[in-house]
Amino acid sequence: MEDVLIRPLEKVDLRDPILVEGLPGVGNVGKLAADYLRDQLHAKPLATIYSKFFPPQVYVSESGIVRLVSNDLAYWKAPASAAHDLLILGGDFQGISPEGQYEITEQVLRYCAGLGVREVYTLAGFAQGRVIEEPRVLGAATLPARVDAMKRFGVHFSRNDPGGGLIGASGLFLGLGRLFGMEGVCLMGETSGYFVDPRSAEAVLKVLAKVLGVAVDFTALEAKAKEIDRIAQKIHEAEQRTTEGPSGSPPASREDLGYIG
Amino acid sequence: MEDVLIRPLEKVDLRDPILVEGLPGVGNVGKLAADYLRDQLHAKPLATIYSKFFPPQVYVSESGIVRLVSNDLAYWKAPASAAHDLLILGGDFQGISPEGQYEITEQVLRYCAGLGVREVYTLAGFAQGRVIEEPRVLGAATLPARVDAMKRFGVHFSRNDPGGGLIGASGLFLGLGRLFGMEGVCLMGETSGYFVDPRSAEAVLKVLAKVLGVAVDFTALEAKAKEIDRIAQKIHEAEQRTTEGPSGSPPASREDLGYIG
Amino acid sequence: MEDVLIRPLEKVDLRDPILVEGLPGVGNVGKLAADYLRDQLHAKPLATIYSKFFPPQVYVSESGIVRLVSNDLAYWKAPASAAHDLLILGGDFQGISPEGQYEITEQVLRYCAGLGVREVYTLAGFAQGRVIEEPRVLGAATLPARVDAMKRFGVHFSRNDPGGGLIGASGLFLGLGRLFGMEGVCLMGETSGYFVDPRSAEAVLKVLAKVLGVAVDFTALEAKAKEIDRIAQKIHEAEQRTTEGPSGSPPASREDLGYIG
Amino acid sequence: MEDVLIRPLEKVDLRDPILVEGLPGVGNVGKLAADYLRDQLHAKPLATIYSKFFPPQVYVSESGIVRLVSNDLAYWKAPASAAHDLLILGGDFQGISPEGQYEITEQVLRYCAGLGVREVYTLAGFAQGRVIEEPRVLGAATLPARVDAMKRFGVHFSRNDPGGGLIGASGLFLGLGRLFGMEGVCLMGETSGYFVDPRSAEAVLKVLAKVLGVAVDFTALEAKAKEIDRIAQKIHEAEQRTTEGPSGSPPASREDLGYIG
Repeated sequence: MEDVLIRPLEKVDLRDPILVEGLPGVGNVGKLAADYLRDQLHAKPLATIYSKFFPPQVYVSESGIVRLVSNDLAYWKAPASAAHDLLILGGDFQGISPEGQYEITEQVLRYCAGLGVREVYTLAGFAQGRVIEEPRVLGAATLPARVDAMKRFGVHFSRNDPGGGLIGASGLFLGLGRLFGMEGVCLMGETSGYFVDPRSAEAVLKVLAKVLGVAVDFTALEAKAKEIDRIAQKIHEAEQRTTEGPSGSPPASREDLGYIG
Repeated sequence: MEDVLIRPLEKVDLRDPILVEGLPGVGNVGKLAADYLRDQLHAKPLATIYSKFFPPQVYVSESGIVRLVSNDLAYWKAPASAAHDLLILGGDFQGISPEGQYEITEQVLRYCAGLGVREVYTLAGFAQGRVIEEPRVLGAATLPARVDAMKRFGVHFSRNDPGGGLIGASGLFLGLGRLFGMEGVCLMGETSGYFVDPRSAEAVLKVLAKVLGVAVDFTALEAKAKEIDRIAQKIHEAEQRTTEGPSGSPPASREDLGYIG
Repeated sequence: MEDVLIRPLEKVDLRDPILVEGLPGVGNVGKLAADYLRDQLHAKPLATIYSKFFPPQVYVSESGIVRLVSNDLAYWKAPASAAHDLLILGGDFQGISPEGQYEITEQVLRYCAGLGVREVYTLAGFAQGRVIEEPRVLGAATLPARVDAMKRFGVHFSRNDPGGGLIGASGLFLGLGRLFGMEGVCLMGETSGYFVDPRSAEAVLKVLAKVLGVAVDFTALEAKAKEIDRIAQKIHEAEQRTTEGPSGSPPASREDLGYIG
Repeated sequence: MEDVLIRPLEKVDLRDPILVEGLPGVGNVGKLAADYLRDQLHAKPLATIYSKFFPPQVYVSESGIVRLVSNDLAYWKAPASAAHDLLILGGDFQGISPEGQYEITEQVLRYCAGLGVREVYTLAGFAQGRVIEEPRVLGAATLPARVDAMKRFGVHFSRNDPGGGLIGASGLFLGLGRLFGMEGVCLMGETSGYFVDPRSAEAVLKVLAKVLGVAVDFTALEAKAKEIDRIAQKIHEAEQRTTEGPSGSPPASREDLGYIG
C-alpha cells in the first residue's frame, strides 16, 4: 500500500489558507488546542489521512463501531473580511517511527501546499518537569520577523528552551515546511509533562486566536482545566496523608486522572 | 522482492463471497476457529501468501519436509440455495511489524476485493486476565445495522470492552476493508489470555456458523477443549499442593500445556 | 541505493550448477563448512553481494586495507565426467533484519536461477545446548525423495528436531528456493552452540562431499577442530580447579577461545 | 518523500575535488576536525542533505529560529597552483539505522561522483578506553599504495586496531566509495571515548592538512582542547578528594563537561 493515504472528503476552494497542526504529544497540549479550535469554529472535515506508519489499530466507539486510526484535516471558511481560511490538522497518533514521521509530515505538507498553504502554526506542550501555575507560551519560528511578531503577542523566546530542539511533528512541520516554501511558528505551552494539560492548551490557543484574529469561547476548555485541577488536588491530598503518618487513609488512585484528551 | 506475494493455486468463480479471517493471536482463538471451520467445511486451498514481513523461517514437518511460513486462503462453495460462498484466511503469523501488518492486510484485501468480497468477519480472542467459565462473544462492527444484527445472535457489545480498540489483523481487516468498500464484524471470544482456548474458539464459531447459516459439528473442538481443561486442572492441583505445604509432591510442569494450536 | 547489489566479477557458463550455502550462524558450522569446501576446491570468485541489510561496516585487514562487508559467490567447474558444477555462497553476515533476510535471499536466488541453479544445499549448525562428542548430521528437505536419499548418506531426520523449524538463511534458501522451482536439502551439524565448531562442520561437509561426489582433504579442518578441543579442555580443567577448592590456580579465561571462524 | 534529499545551493565547477568526511561519532573527533577545516578555509555551502533516516527533529537557535537537522557539503576552491579543490561533508547526525547509513552514504557519494570526486578522506575517533596524552593517528585505506603514503605522514597502521573493522559513516564512505571508483583513507585520532576530544581532532587534522597541502591555523582548536583539559582536570581533582576521605568537599559535577562540539 502507499505509505500515506490521504482521502479527500470534499473539494473546497480556500483563500490563502493557514495550516494549524496539533497532534498528540507532551501533555496532549497541541491536540487539545487544535481539537478545541476545530470544535469552536465548527470546522468541517476535509480529508482523512491513513498510514502504515500509524499503529495497526482500530478504535471502537461506545456503540461498537470501529474506526481505523488516522489523522484528519478540517477546514474553516473565514468571514469575507478576513485574509485567511484555516486548515486544522489533528488525529490519533504521530507516526510511530522516525521514518514514518518524515513520510507523513511530507505528504500532508505536499497536500496542503496543493491547497495553497504558505503559513503553518504548530501547537505543542513543553515539559518543565514541575507543576506550572501560569503556563507561559514559548515559541520558535522559521524567520526572525516571525519571532518579533510573536513577541508582540506575549510569546517567550528563551535562549535555552527548547535546548535540544523540537522532536516530532511540531518541529517537522516547520522544518520540512520550508522545503515547500512555507513559513511558520511553533507555539509551546509550558506544562508539567505529568498530566494532560487543558490549561496549557488554553494558553497556547489564546495566543493563536489573537494571532489569527478569530474569536474563541474558552468556557468549555476552562471547565476541563478545572476538572483536572480538582483531580490533581485530590491526588496531592491523598499523597500528603500517606506521607504524614501510618494512620492516614489510603491514597486515591492516580489512575483517576486517566488520560483525559 | 515484493512486500507480499500472493500465489493463487487455482482459478475459481465465487458467488458474492464472504471473507472469514482467523490468524494467531490472543489465546489463538481466531486461528483455532478459522482453522476448524476450514476443516469442517473441507474448504479448498485457493492461494498461499508469503511476505518479507513474516519471520524468515521455515517449518519442518515430522517427515522432514520444509515449508516456508505463510498465510493461506481457502474457499468453500456453498450449496446452490445459499447466497454466499466463503473465503477463509488462516496462517502461521501476523505481520511482525506495524508496517508489515498494514502491507499484508491491504494486499490480501485487494486480492479478496478482486474475488468479489464485500463482507468480512474477523475472529479473535479477548483477554480478560482471569479464568473464564462461560466465554461470551464480544463484537465490534463497521455499521450500526451490523451491531444490531449481531446482538440478535447473542453477541455482546460493551461500552468499555475493548477499551483501547483492537490491535492487529482482526481490527485492521475491518478498518482497511472499509477503504475497499467492505463492511464487517469482529467476533471476539472471551479468554483468560493464559492458554490456547478452544472453548472460546467454539463460542465464537457457534455464533459465526449461525450468522453464516452453515452447519458445523463441534465434537472435535469440544474434545480439544476438554483436553486443555484436564491439563489446566492438573496444573492447578499441583500448584495447590505446592502452596499448601512442604510435604506436597513436586508440581507438574506448566510446560505440559504447551501451545496446542 | 538498491536493497541488494550483486556485482559479477566474471562471466561463466556453468553446467547445471548446484548452490551450496554456508553463512555465519550457530557454531559457525555452515560458514566453516562452505568456506572450507571453497578453499579445498579452489573455487573462483564469481560475484560479490552488498546490501543495506548488512551492518554499515568495513573490515580492515592486517595490512590496513578496508573491505565492505559482503556475501560472496564462488564457482567450481567440475571435471567433465560430473553432472554438476558448483556455486558456493559464503560471507560475513546474514541480513540483520527479517525483511533483510528475505530480500537478500530472494535476490541471490534470482541471480542463481539465472545461472541455471535448480538444486540447493544449505549448511548449518544445530544447537543442542550440551557438549557433543560425535556430531550427527540432521536433515530437512523440500521433497520426500530427498529425505530418503539423504538417509542413505547417514543423515538423521528426527521427528522433533528442529522443533520450531529453521530460522535464517539456511531455511529461507530452501523455502524461497521453491518459488524459483528449486529443490534442496538442509544439512545441520549438531553442536553445543557455545563455540565455533569445526568438528561439526567436518561432519556436515563429509556428508555433502559424498552427496556431491567431490573429494575433500579434511586434514586442515581436523587440525582446527583439535585446536578448539585443546582450548576447550584447558578451560574445562581450569573451571574444575576453581570449583574444587580455594587453593586452585586462577582459571584460564574463556576469552582464549575467541571466535575462530 | 525521497529517502535522501540533496538540495544544491549553488552550481560550481570543481577541479578534481577531494571529499573530506567528518560526521558526529566517537569523541566527536571527525566532526570537530571537518568543521574546523571548513571554518579555517572559509569553505562555502554547496548543498544541504535531508533524510528520513535522520531523527525527526529541528534545532532551535538562540534567537528562536528553527533548522531541520541535516548534513552539509561545503566546497573550497584551492589556489591555482594546487591540483585539487575540496568538498567537506559535516552535519548533525549519521543515519540512525543501518539501512539509513547505507542510503545516505550511497546518495552523497553518487552526488559527489557527479562533481568529479575520485578521492575520499574520512575522519573519525578511535576509542581506547583510557586517557590518551599524545593521540596517535591510526589509518585504514583502500589501497596498499595509500597505506605506504600515509605512513610517510606519520599515520600508524596497526595489525590489531581497529580490530572489528570500522562501523558507521567513516568506514562506509570508503567501502561504498570503491563502488563509485573512489579510493581513500580513514584517519582515526586516538581518544579516550569519554569526552569530545579537540586534541585528537587536532592530531587528525594536522596529518590531513599536510597530506592535502593546505595551511591551517590551529590556535582556536588548541584553545578548545585546553578548555576541555581544564574541565577534565577539575573533575579529576574533585573525584580524588571524594576518594581520599569523608572530609573532602563535594565533587564537581561531571555534567560541567557537557558535550562541547
